[in-house]
Amino acid sequence: MTQQVLILPGDGIGPEITAEAVKVLEALKATDGLDIEMTEDLVGGAAYDVHGVPLADETMAKAQAADAVLLGAVGGYKWESLDISVRPEKGLLRLRSEMQLFANLRPAFLYPQLADASTLKPEVVAGLDILIVRELTGGIYFGQPRGIRTLENGERQGYNTYVYSESEIKRIAHVAFQAAMKRNKKLTSVDKANVLEVTELWREIVDQVAVEYPEVEVKHMYVDNAAMQLVLNPKQFDVMVTGNMFGDILSDEASMLTGSIGMLASASLDANNKGMYEPSHGSAPDIAGQNLANPLATILSAAMMLRYSLGREDLAVKIENAVGKVLDQGLRTGDIFSDGMTRVSCSEMGDAVVAAL
Amino acid sequence: MTQQVLILPGDGIGPEITAEAVKVLEALKATDGLDIEMTEDLVGGAAYDVHGVPLADETMAKAQAADAVLLGAVGGYKWESLDISVRPEKGLLRLRSEMQLFANLRPAFLYPQLADASTLKPEVVAGLDILIVRELTGGIYFGQPRGIRTLENGERQGYNTYVYSESEIKRIAHVAFQAAMKRNKKLTSVDKANVLEVTELWREIVDQVAVEYPEVEVKHMYVDNAAMQLVLNPKQFDVMVTGNMFGDILSDEASMLTGSIGMLASASLDANNKGMYEPSHGSAPDIAGQNLANPLATILSAAMMLRYSLGREDLAVKIENAVGKVLDQGLRTGDIFSDGMTRVSCSEMGDAVVAAL
Ligand SMILES: CC(C)[C@H](C(=O)O)[C@@H](O)C(=O)O
Ligand SMILES: CC(C)[C@H](C(=O)O)[C@@H](O)C(=O)O
Repeated sequence: MTQQVLILPGDGIGPEITAEAVKVLEALKATDGLDIEMTEDLVGGAAYDVHGVPLADETMAKAQAADAVLLGAVGGYKWESLDISVRPEKGLLRLRSEMQLFANLRPAFLYPQLADASTLKPEVVAGLDILIVRELTGGIYFGQPRGIRTLENGERQGYNTYVYSESEIKRIAHVAFQAAMKRNKKLTSVDKANVLEVTELWREIVDQVAVEYPEVEVKHMYVDNAAMQLVLNPKQFDVMVTGNMFGDILSDEASMLTGSIGMLASASLDANNKGMYEPSHGSAPDIAGQNLANPLATILSAAMMLRYSLGREDLAVKIENAVGKVLDQGLRTGDIFSDGMTRVSCSEMGDAVVAAL
Repeated sequence: MTQQVLILPGDGIGPEITAEAVKVLEALKATDGLDIEMTEDLVGGAAYDVHGVPLADETMAKAQAADAVLLGAVGGYKWESLDISVRPEKGLLRLRSEMQLFANLRPAFLYPQLADASTLKPEVVAGLDILIVRELTGGIYFGQPRGIRTLENGERQGYNTYVYSESEIKRIAHVAFQAAMKRNKKLTSVDKANVLEVTELWREIVDQVAVEYPEVEVKHMYVDNAAMQLVLNPKQFDVMVTGNMFGDILSDEASMLTGSIGMLASASLDANNKGMYEPSHGSAPDIAGQNLANPLATILSAAMMLRYSLGREDLAVKIENAVGKVLDQGLRTGDIFSDGMTRVSCSEMGDAVVAAL
């Protein structure tokens, strides 16, 4: 049966980079019997400009009905003064929440061909391969109560609630332990259990779940220390699991250690491996529309989609190998360019991947 | 009039490193007419072991009565299974809160003599000099309500509250702008205003305060992006201002960029420049009691104390110059050791600073 894929290009460089991923998927439809139908719709600022909301109900319904969603990026200067409730980001948050995509997988992987792109010394990052498992539908991102209220003394006070229940912690811990079992069997759970009660519970539940995975070596680390250890000795990490906000911060830090965040994909999964796939980087409004962006993170996100949601591991590997080939050929967009390499545009990079399939 | 200094060595390497700072202060009493009286007391796990609480009321009273507090470090494996309410860290949090030390200044400075200690490439960090201004008595560290409750379905839920009022944001913003005025007049305020209402208010108030400092160039940055930018291009930052939790994470990340967190001091000040001074690093229980720790961060914290709370800028500079000299002499504790240098112990380093005064 034909599987349905919803393409949500979003804002900034989103349309350019998703176009290249679509190109790759179209090629696989033509040559490898990939049986998908792709539909495109609006999200983020692009949706706000048309509908007055960052995600229309019809789009939400399409996402629910689809087998997988491929998203570009959302947000930009243009919408920064909007109220939080209608910001582009809210469209993304609504998708994550209503599709129940609680498990966000963010690999921070150093491509051997790009070893020198990192700001860290080569010996510190050579071979870096971390998987961050971030809880994505709970924590302070969605906690109630929240808002801005006026106190009795007349001044305003902003407030948000950081909240996790046992079952929320349990299910993300299982995802992380299972991922660790398929990798090097080392899991670091990140919290601030010396200060925040919500993460005291986090630590306790992770320890409970750990009993079911006796082969996995578990370590607990405070978030401030984790932010340091990522800089000091990132190769100590295999899988890291943490809540929504700490995961937001640490996954971006970890991605940047590789020097090539333009290469990093992500998957956001529900309990049945239905998912949304997006590059780890943002909408880069400063270079939008100039055919300069690196489409590889989005193309690799499409590969993750084939693997996790569409049951085509074979094609995921095919794409990943093609990306390896174009890197070996020395093709580089501006973000990963270095001396002696061949500078290509966003669309040229997409074409090269198709040619290398 | 003799000024009162309370010394709180704390746990782990705390006693060793504060002993060296005391040595330096004693030398200045003898040679430079420094008129202080130092009293020592317990904090953290050391206090818990004796009093059953991480800070006795008598110690709190002494801190309130003192002109300044010099603290080593708190915490360690030994006390990790204790309830949050009596953990070593709680002693520190009580001091910060009851002394109203809302302004935490954490310099992340690269010593030219230690340029190679960083895991980052020399050209990325050469000349790095960031001041992080962290709000220290509010935010999610102290927000109410907090705790672990049982839901109707029988499962437990942990919760904490991230809260800031206008006046809290205003006063820390002023500290940051004033610091920026004395430096390169660039301020980056870090928030997550695209998701969290409390930081939407943060951003608004920082913009209000900015009007009073027209010379300072202000930038707002999301915390995830800040964690990335610190790795990508740390030298873009001059002063950074943020809340308690983001400040905890980012200041540790920034410190580690220098490769020598064992060199970094910090000051926590109230509205009248009364303060508590502590190294940026932790209690390092793994090397405690072995005379291996680097005492320079604590010695430099004593220098900050002389500058901000005791009105002896001259002696602060004297200590800082002495530290520069011992580095020039090639003396290194293990954490900053490199080939060709002379390895010294904690107490030898303290002696060398005294000799270089
Ligand atoms: C755009 C924003 C809401 C989002 C987040 O904070 O989760 C982004 O930073 C990310 O990490 O996917
Ligand atoms: C020990 C701990 C409570 C403390 C904090 O989180 O503030 C420490 O990490 C720090 O940054 O001073």
